[in-house]
Amino acid sequence: MAQNIYDDPQFFTAYSQFRRSLQGLDGAAEWPALRALLPPMRGLRVADLGCGFGWFSRWAREAGAAEVLGIDVSENMLTRARAETADAAVRYERGDLDALDLREAAFDLVHSSLALHYVEDLGRLLKTMHRAIVPGGALVFSIEHPIYMAPSQPGWTTLEDGRKVWPLDDYGREGRRSTDWLAKGVVKYHRTLGTTLNLMIRAGFRVAHVEEWAPSPEQIAAAPEAAEALDRPIFLLIAATR
Amino acid sequence: MAQNIYDDPQFFTAYSQFRRSLQGLDGAAEWPALRALLPPMRGLRVADLGCGFGWFSRWAREAGAAEVLGIDVSENMLTRARAETADAAVRYERGDLDALDLREAAFDLVHSSLALHYVEDLGRLLKTMHRAIVPGGALVFSIEHPIYMAPSQPGWTTLEDGRKVWPLDDYGREGRRSTDWLAKGVVKYHRTLGTTLNLMIRAGFRVAHVEEWAPSPEQIAAAPEAAEALDRPIFLLIAATR
Repeated sequence: MAQNIYDDPQFFTAYSQFRRSLQGLDGAAEWPALRALLPPMRGLRVADLGCGFGWFSRWAREAGAAEVLGIDVSENMLTRARAETADAAVRYERGDLDALDLREAAFDLVHSSLALHYVEDLGRLLKTMHRAIVPGGALVFSIEHPIYMAPSQPGWTTLEDGRKVWPLDDYGREGRRSTDWLAKGVVKYHRTLGTTLNLMIRAGFRVAHVEEWAPSPEQIAAAPEAAEALDRPIFLLIAATR
Repeated sequence: MAQNIYDDPQFFTAYSQFRRSLQGLDGAAEWPALRALLPPMRGLRVADLGCGFGWFSRWAREAGAAEVLGIDVSENMLTRARAETADAAVRYERGDLDALDLREAAFDLVHSSLALHYVEDLGRLLKTMHRAIVPGGALVFSIEHPIYMAPSQPGWTTLEDGRKVWPLDDYGREGRRSTDWLAKGVVKYHRTLGTTLNLMIRAGFRVAHVEEWAPSPEQIAAAPEAAEALDRPIFLLIAATR
């Protein structure tokens, strides 16, 4: 079972102050890049895995989706998602992505933003997704980039010669990572980019686009600190077809 | 045009001393992993881009390929390849991978080992390969891993706390890299893993396997220093179908 860190009061309080929690999709720097990977929403049946506060679920419906099912393990997040959604075609269900079951051929699009790195058995979940998506349907998701997740001690380091570098190690050592981010002991699962893609391919998906997200010149002009993602990527965006 | 560093006398002399130059495929740690990605060779028409001394070209023929065309820009390497090949079904031609043309639907397999990172316009070459491979054929290649190639100053660094790390920066800044490796000013082209895959997909390939190579436990037992590839990958192996 995936850790339910979003129901940790300290974590939830801190996460709720994030720009992406307050402003939704427009507060997420990678959203324009992710949106560009999505199919036209008109008429689609959409599943949103790790839906959080429901920002994407509501956006998909407003963009024309026929129905949206948001799934999250956090009661805190589902409570707020339900309170902020007034649309019978957008439903929310509690679910653990490490034990999730989905109806066969029930969706045209499965989306997931920054949730799948909490999942221990991604191969199982990808097979579940593949069964749940109709032929020709799409899977579009973002995760923390494995370069960001891999190191034994993630965090910028300044070398003696003044270079600010990302001290990479352990990239090829996959598995559990416990970090102190907003709360102590947040558990994620590191997989190389190759492993993630191979699990998708073995589940039956056809990889359509792999984006190691970097900010646009406009985003860097507006927020110069965003340029650090050009030194080491933080988000990985992947689109695939079923 | 790609730099022809293998015809630099200093580079060529040093490269010729490498285990993979002296022992061929068995001297290349990543060869078992690459071989596992290859289709059965029986009857195939094979192109070997950046064939070097011809080790792979000869192996493919011995493994049953109908004919093999090895292409390299280095006269030094072609001279030795021709001298060591006594098989009319294995031919060698001089060619610059940045300007290469190949006959349409002439090959069942295109292979390339550690050559494509010298190519400036990979998109062009991938389109050329796609046209040259028959439907259902395969592309299997290795390149230096972008994590290995990206840094402004590649090389292990020991931090104050004793950790040996790979000081990553510039991962998202693609383009020319000039390094001093065997000779001064060896020119390579850094592309993120995502960019390489997207160029393949746009050329029409279907990605079949992506391997960020790491040594096996047996390889580490035989050569403990090989374990450093678990901290940061050095080779990237990719298989695709046309």
